[in-house]
Order: sequence, then structure tokens, then C-alpha cells
Amino acid sequence: MAKINSGERAAKIFEQIGERADTLVIANGVEPHLDASFFYLTRFQYGLFESSFLVAEKDGNISLITSLLEEPIARSFETGIEIFAEKDRDQMKKRLESIARRNGSPRSVALNSSELTYGSYLQIKSAFKGAKLLDESEAYESARMIKDQNEIALIRNACDIASGIYEKVPSMLKDGVTETSVSARMAFDMQESGASGVAFDTIVAFGKNSAEPHYAPAQTKLKSDHFVLLDYGARYKRYNSDITRTLVFGSASKKQKEMYDTVSRALELGKELCTPDNTGDFVNTKVTELIDSTEFKGRFIHSTGHSLGLSVHDGPGLSSRFNKKLQPGMILTVEPGIYIPGYGGVRIEDDVLVTKDKPRVLTSARRDLIVV
Amino acid sequence: MAKINSGERAAKIFEQIGERADTLVIANGVEPHLDASFFYLTRFQYGLFESSFLVAEKDGNISLITSLLEEPIARSFETGIEIFAEKDRDQMKKRLESIARRNGSPRSVALNSSELTYGSYLQIKSAFKGAKLLDESEAYESARMIKDQNEIALIRNACDIASGIYEKVPSMLKDGVTETSVSARMAFDMQESGASGVAFDTIVAFGKNSAEPHYAPAQTKLKSDHFVLLDYGARYKRYNSDITRTLVFGSASKKQKEMYDTVSRALELGKELCTPDNTGDFVNTKVTELIDSTEFKGRFIHSTGHSLGLSVHDGPGLSSRFNKKLQPGMILTVEPGIYIPGYGGVRIEDDVLVTKDKPRVLTSARRDLIVV
Repeated sequence: MAKINSGERAAKIFEQIGERADTLVIANGVEPHLDASFFYLTRFQYGLFESSFLVAEKDGNISLITSLLEEPIARSFETGIEIFAEKDRDQMKKRLESIARRNGSPRSVALNSSELTYGSYLQIKSAFKGAKLLDESEAYESARMIKDQNEIALIRNACDIASGIYEKVPSMLKDGVTETSVSARMAFDMQESGASGVAFDTIVAFGKNSAEPHYAPAQTKLKSDHFVLLDYGARYKRYNSDITRTLVFGSASKKQKEMYDTVSRALELGKELCTPDNTGDFVNTKVTELIDSTEFKGRFIHSTGHSLGLSVHDGPGLSSRFNKKLQPGMILTVEPGIYIPGYGGVRIEDDVLVTKDKPRVLTSARRDLIVV
Repeated sequence: MAKINSGERAAKIFEQIGERADTLVIANGVEPHLDASFFYLTRFQYGLFESSFLVAEKDGNISLITSLLEEPIARSFETGIEIFAEKDRDQMKKRLESIARRNGSPRSVALNSSELTYGSYLQIKSAFKGAKLLDESEAYESARMIKDQNEIALIRNACDIASGIYEKVPSMLKDGVTETSVSARMAFDMQESGASGVAFDTIVAFGKNSAEPHYAPAQTKLKSDHFVLLDYGARYKRYNSDITRTLVFGSASKKQKEMYDTVSRALELGKELCTPDNTGDFVNTKVTELIDSTEFKGRFIHSTGHSLGLSVHDGPGLSSRFNKKLQPGMILTVEPGIYIPGYGGVRIEDDVLVTKDKPRVLTSARRDLIVV
């Protein structure tokens, strides 16, 4: 497989933009306000690069303006990017102005508005005097949604780490253990298995807490017959996995089993439908319809899935907001759920690679109902 | 101590803005592009609140526009905020427009440009037709830099957790242990001690890796006589601590001791100077001068510290960019370092609360040179 360089990724974005722009400008703010597109183009696997700028021109030339602090990291990666390391923000600003001028006549600059701060926008506007500044966030998003082989390998690794540690979960579930304690243990196991960290704050929700999709672990203690919902992921060299499993501690009631079975069927349907024949909207509708055809009608309160990559929410996926056909190379989460306030919730989530043929499921953790 | 409500925090921001604006509008993008000011005003201790809007008016009225998904979390906190939970982004946009219209004549809206995405800015601009949109990020920053008692208690807790686990570090340092393994262990210990998670990706750097201030842990194995630099923090209910310690494994050379001693003296000087008599710029200059008066001249390649709070970099602090006087209630990091490329680095960092009198050091982990 040929080495993919940063220029090839910039070209993927330019392809989406067509004739509308000749320059990409990406700016990082202060952590966490970093643009994942910065890391997409530079392929830097670590470093923060706060307040740094990346300028990619249509002819293939890419310039990085960063601080002395980040210079050694930038130089440790082979990228073909021209590096300007400056001593402070004023110098960085001057360098951006000089690069803007270097290109002669005012240009059309494509911005990624969904990850660019308004503050950085104002800096770019001032440096690129007279240039047309365009919101081309959809072009960035569309390019990044189709993963190259290198990205697929990294995400697959992140999925393997997350799937692998699920085997250890049943042994962590003891009467009285807290949600935070399970969450801490899972994070540790992922890092010990090679993760750079967690993809996002692990959700561990016991009992009725599982009915809140964005619950944060607290000191709730595990009790008999409770649901145990785990939504977690590993980060590996900046790429993420995202997986959810739900177990029952003690014994599972008929209602719990019915909820689980319904979500399982919705998950399998959703995954099967992840082919280039279908739009994200269509898959979401079908999965929602399946749940709405049961006694749990109306209890699936979010969309079926999202794109996954350098960000956990790396663009739209299986939702009403995405009415385009799925494409080979997309990696999507499929995560139906049923939530009953005051009682509990079930969600099961896999990560799926869309191919020309059948979708490939990247998360291998067992998905039958485990009763511990 | 009186309960502080969300309106009082909004009033602190309006105080900074004076007559320039009558409305604050805060918008979250997609994680990680969330505005910490959103959590400052709502006091929500968890939840993501992606794509949500917060509108605070000068008369004290605060409205939250969020999704059905986040509604139960929002309602679980007592805040006095009016909550509008909408079923999708279109409805959220319509609600924002109706709130914008509700207020009659076009208004002056204060934005926090450093944490607002350009995409969200465009949405606000379209909803608040005819309104003046002002970049008031400095007002947000200045208000947030002065912590109230509630915030100080949370940060103190985050500092206690981080300091507490340092005692366990020497026992983790064995010949051949990897940086990532130590990092995983430290994260686990912090979560087991009550942290919601890590404040940022823990830096564990062995040997010459310690010369890179933003190094990320890798598979480097610990060897005799290596520096061990640890830069880490705990997050507790959304508030952060940030601490650095450097140890030596094996035996410390004369040069290592000299580096350590110099940084120690710079740290103590920096902390002492954190009083309302001094500007951040002045403290930074004095600390830099101390290091530059030694054989390690020029080896301190970043500024002395930053503000700490809901974000790890929660505004400027001890740097040339902050030429205002320090104020009681500010919590700042003091983190001098000496970096010798190819050899190694020493950094020691404490978190300090500025008071009317002497500064109070919140990080209590021992700071003498530990040789394991």
C-alpha cells in the first residue's frame, strides 16, 4: 500500500470544494478547541498545537505555523509540510499575514466552521485581507467521512481494544460496586491494552440511571436485577472507537429481556442496512420503525448513529440529517436504544465499516444478553 | 455561605461588559467544541448539551434551549433557568429565533469568541437579526478567572485528588515499566479517589522525552538514572487541577540535581509573587530571569503559568500576555521548567489561589527531589 501523505488528504478536501476555493486555512484555538482536520492533514499523532495555523494550497503546498514548544513534535513526523516555528502569538500572526501575502492576489479560503472558533476566524479574516472566506465545513466533513486504509487500521485497533476489555467487565460487577469504580477500571484496562486514553468519558449507568443516554457515572452502587449500561471507547493515536453494551446484574425480568431483544433486533437490522444502497436517513427510519412497532414505541429518543474517526462525532451518519447514500470507507456507529424514565434503558452499539458489499462490523465484543 | 445561583454568575459577566451589551448568548457545538461558560452559568456538573444555546438577559432571566436527550439532566439541577427542550436542531433554531424576537428591539449580544465555533456564530447571527454581535470573550474570561467559593472548593478537591495519588508514584517506577503503563495507573488511581476523569491526557515522559513539554506517553521503558516527568490533573465535577512533578529513577547526577534545584527555586519565587501587587507579566519575567541567570539560560521555553478552572487553560496567567494585576480568587498554575533537547527536562508545577494576603498553594504533593 502506497504511503499516503498530507497533500493527498488536502486534495480530498479540495475535490469536495471544486472551483470555489484555492486555499484551506485551519486554526486551532486553546484546548479543547482544536480542529480535528488539523490532525487529519498533518497526521500528527500527538501534541496540542494550540493557536497554530495550517495553510494548504491547491498546488499541494502545506505550511504549518506553530510555536517553538510544539516544533520538536512537528519535526518528529514525516509529512512534507513546511514548518514555521515562532516564539509567540504575535510572530505567528505575522507569519500568517506573510503567507497570505505570498500568494499574490486575494484568494478564496475554505474554512471548517464547525471546528473553528469565531476568535480564530477573526484572526484569519484580518490576515487574509480581501480574500473570500467561505464556510466549507461540509467539504471537510465529507472528505473526512471516507476513511483511507491508514485510518481504518487505526480505528480498527481502537475497536479491538474496546472489544477486548469487555470480557473483563462481568468480573468487575459485584454487589455494591460503584459506577465510577467500574468506569475507572475500564479506562485502566483500555490504556493497559495500548489505548492512548479514553475516546470520551465512559458512561457506566446502573438501574434507572441507564434511562439517561448522557448520564455520567456517580457513586450509585450496583444492586440486584439492575441494568448495567456501558458506553465507552478507546482512543488510539487520535482515532476513536465507540461501543455500548448493556448487561443485567442478578436476574433479568421478562421486561428487561424484551427490551434487550428489541434493541438487539434493531441493531442487527441497522448494521445490515449499512450499504451503499441506502441513505443514513433511511437506515435511521427503518431502525426507529422497528422499535416503534413494539410496545416500546416512542422510547428511542435519539438518532441511530454517527460517523466515527478523529472525533467521536465525526460527522452525521444514521440520522434524519443525513439523506445521502452511504459510501464505502465510512465508519458509522449503529446504536439503537430504549429508554424508560425511572426504570432503565438498554442501548447496544457497534461500529461498522461500509464497503462495496456487506458492511464489516469492527467491534467484536459479544452482544448476547449477559446476566452476571 | 449563601447559595450562588446562575444569575449571579451572569451578573459577573455583565459587570465586565458594562453598557456595551444587554444579552449574553452562548452556544455549544459538537463535543469537544463546548463552551465552558455554558457550564459556568448553568452549573451543570455533567451532560454534553451539544448544539444547545443559553441566552442570559441583563434583567436576570436565563433561557436554555436544548434537546429532549439532555432535558432530564438539565432538570436534575436547581438553577432557576427556564428550559426549552426541543426535538431536533430545526426546532432549537426556531426557539432561538423566538427568544430573540421576544425581546423586542434589536439588542447588543455579547459572544465568547474563543469558545464559540464560527458555525454557531452564523446561527446566532441569523436568529438575532439586526442585533449588534460583539466579541466580549475578555469579559467572559475575566469573570471566570475570579473563582467563587463554590468553584474554589471544587478545584481544591481536584487538587487534593491529584496530590494524593503522587504518593503512589514511586512504587509504580520499576526498571522496564512503560510510560503508558504509569499513565494508566495514575488515571485509575485518580478516578478511584473520586475524580470524574483526568483533566487532560497525562504526560509521563522518561529520560530525554522529558525535554518535550507536550510529550505524549509511549512505549519507552524506564531505565536507570532517567528523569521521570509527570504532568497530570484530576477533573472533579467539571473543574480541573494541573500538577507536575519530576523524579529521578536510579541515582541523580550533579547536572540533574542542579536542574532540579534551579526549577525549585524558580517555582518558589513564582508562587511567592502571586499577590495582588503583581501583574502576571511581572511574575513571568521574574521567574524567567531567575532561570536565565543560571547556566540554564534560554532553556525555559514557555510561560510560567495559566489560569485554571472549568478549562485547564482557563485564561491567561503568569505570562507576557497578562499585564494586569493578579486578583484574589484567581487560581493559577506556576510551572517553571528547564528543557535540554536530547538530554531531558525538569518541570515542577503547583496550583495557587491568589488571596488578599499570601497566596495559598492548593497542590500539596511533596516537591523535594525524589530519587527512586
